[in-house]
Amino acid sequence: MTTTSETTAVDTRDRLIEGAVSLLHAQAYRAVGVKALCEVAGVRKGSFYHFFSSKEDLTLAALDLSWERFRSAVIEPILTQDLDVEEQTTAIRDACLDTRGHGPHPDHPHGCIFGRLSASITNGEPLLRARLAEIFTEWAGLLGEGDDGWRALADIIGRLVLAFSMEAGPES
Amino acid sequence: MTTTSETTAVDTRDRLIEGAVSLLHAQAYRAVGVKALCEVAGVRKGSFYHFFSSKEDLTLAALDLSWERFRSAVIEPILTQDLDVEEQTTAIRDACLDTRGHGPHPDHPHGCIFGRLSASITNGEPLLRARLAEIFTEWAGLLGEGDDGWRALADIIGRLVLAFSMEAGPES
Repeated sequence: MTTTSETTAVDTRDRLIEGAVSLLHAQAYRAVGVKALCEVAGVRKGSFYHFFSSKEDLTLAALDLSWERFRSAVIEPILTQDLDVEEQTTAIRDACLDTRGHGPHPDHPHGCIFGRLSASITNGEPLLRARLAEIFTEWAGLLGEGDDGWRALADIIGRLVLAFSMEAGPES
Repeated sequence: MTTTSETTAVDTRDRLIEGAVSLLHAQAYRAVGVKALCEVAGVRKGSFYHFFSSKEDLTLAALDLSWERFRSAVIEPILTQDLDVEEQTTAIRDACLDTRGHGPHPDHPHGCIFGRLSASITNGEPLLRARLAEIFTEWAGLLGEGDDGWRALADIIGRLVLAFSMEAGPES
């Protein structure tokens, strides 16, 4: 039987992870502090360190959840359709760009946790860098073999990053 | 005749811009503060506001200088060669990736001021966003007409952002 305090602990941890997903989707890693992560989750700072040893630790959990969701909700359904590589890439890219304007933060309408983190972390976050590299490698592998997969992924990430700067985004 | 104080003023302003180019090449916008910008230029904080009204103001100057240099030193020489679009894109991309490991900051070996800024600014920096959009539009126009240019630019920016996370970078 689950006790109330256990339920609350799971809930608090989940709220921190969901809050991190939402903030890191739209803002640079350096711009997001433990204070903001606690505030968006409605969690006291003292509780934060009960669940995560650092901002990097929470970010790893947020990254894993984001990748799990994105792969199962966006990439895999598109890959099961009868599309050629270019159509697949376009569909995945459009799915990413369609989140535009629907983010939780009106100041940061364009979001992609993978692109944002990749552009904003440094060698000071080796675990994050390594996890991102694994995710990108898996993602490229889903899109095509060898450089075909990397080319398709570069197109997706490049369009997203360009869209961060363009009012209407580049034409797709 | 130029007086010593005029020479010093020009020199101080230039040092601030060069320092900003070097820091923003490798770090997220939020991670770079006025204090660090002054330190890398060897300029007192009081002097900063004599030359620039804000971090965004200095960043605009750094962005303009970077684009001017990059266009004349990298893009235009490649475009004058007898290459097809894919070869041009590869050459420009490789020129960007070749800066890997040669940056002034060993902690941030992979750099691209355009990609970094694009991924790390928000709607809170409208002038920077607008200037980046102009630069990307000009850059895409140099690479090809309409969506061909945007596709080539997305490939370049996407590969760069992926390289930020990959030890050896994606194969090119």
